[in-house]
Amino acid sequence: MNATQTMVKMTLDRWYGSIKNFETALNSMTDEQLQKEIAPNKNRGIYLLGHLIAVHDDMIVLLNFGDKQYPELAEPFIKSPDRAISEIPSAKELRAYWSKQTELLTQKINSLQADEWFQKHTAVSAEDFEKEPHRNKLNILVTRTTHLAYHTGQFILLN
Amino acid sequence: MNATQTMVKMTLDRWYGSIKNFETALNSMTDEQLQKEIAPNKNRGIYLLGHLIAVHDDMIVLLNFGDKQYPELAEPFIKSPDRAISEIPSAKELRAYWSKQTELLTQKINSLQADEWFQKHTAVSAEDFEKEPHRNKLNILVTRTTHLAYHTGQFILLN
Repeated sequence: MNATQTMVKMTLDRWYGSIKNFETALNSMTDEQLQKEIAPNKNRGIYLLGHLIAVHDDMIVLLNFGDKQYPELAEPFIKSPDRAISEIPSAKELRAYWSKQTELLTQKINSLQADEWFQKHTAVSAEDFEKEPHRNKLNILVTRTTHLAYHTGQFILLN
Repeated sequence: MNATQTMVKMTLDRWYGSIKNFETALNSMTDEQLQKEIAPNKNRGIYLLGHLIAVHDDMIVLLNFGDKQYPELAEPFIKSPDRAISEIPSAKELRAYWSKQTELLTQKINSLQADEWFQKHTAVSAEDFEKEPHRNKLNILVTRTTHLAYHTGQFILLN
């Protein structure tokens, strides 16, 4: 294993570990629990679930894996705070979206070679990437892993 | 900048960004707020602060930066749940510990060359490291960054 492969393994291990932590919490909760707030007057569990799906949907585009699967989630779960939009998918639907999306992302992530992770992501220009080589695909995974951990810390409070 | 330097920069950027997020929240809170629970019957803010200092103290040893600065914090903030031990430092004291520790860690972290981050940390044997090269110093930073993000997500609920 060369240094590049080692770095990719470290990052992917952390991503998958964080996905697993969230899923373990999600699977331990009822749909009713997801309707509760993580703390008084804070986001509901279902909002956090929708938010994570919407943010991970963006990753599909940033990593050049294809089109968003659930573009309709950006409005209620990224652009708007919890409860601003009353019509949102049910907990059951969001669970299904999460599973399908995680399966797709896992398949795509595993298909990349180590070197490809150090290529630019789709939101940075070739010119900027020349000067800022850290704005690569692997960094998308690095930043979304801490984002996921941050919200998992909140999500488990429902238990 | 080669791939190793790029990877180190990505990881350090994420660590410092996470430290900054936590500090911004910490500095926005009064000592009284730190005595509150993040959610009903969950950990208090002061416990999370002590827990992070205790965990980061371990990093000093794992990264071969020297001895723990606050070994007495492991018992109340890692080995015990919140409130199990009633005698803990004050919020004011813990804030001072946090600042001093972060300063020390920053100085030590910045003193390492990119290649040194891929050397083994102190809790893995040379033999195991041969087979598992991802158990390096950089991985300590990777895993503690998600740990910090996880608890920061909880900590900001005090606001």
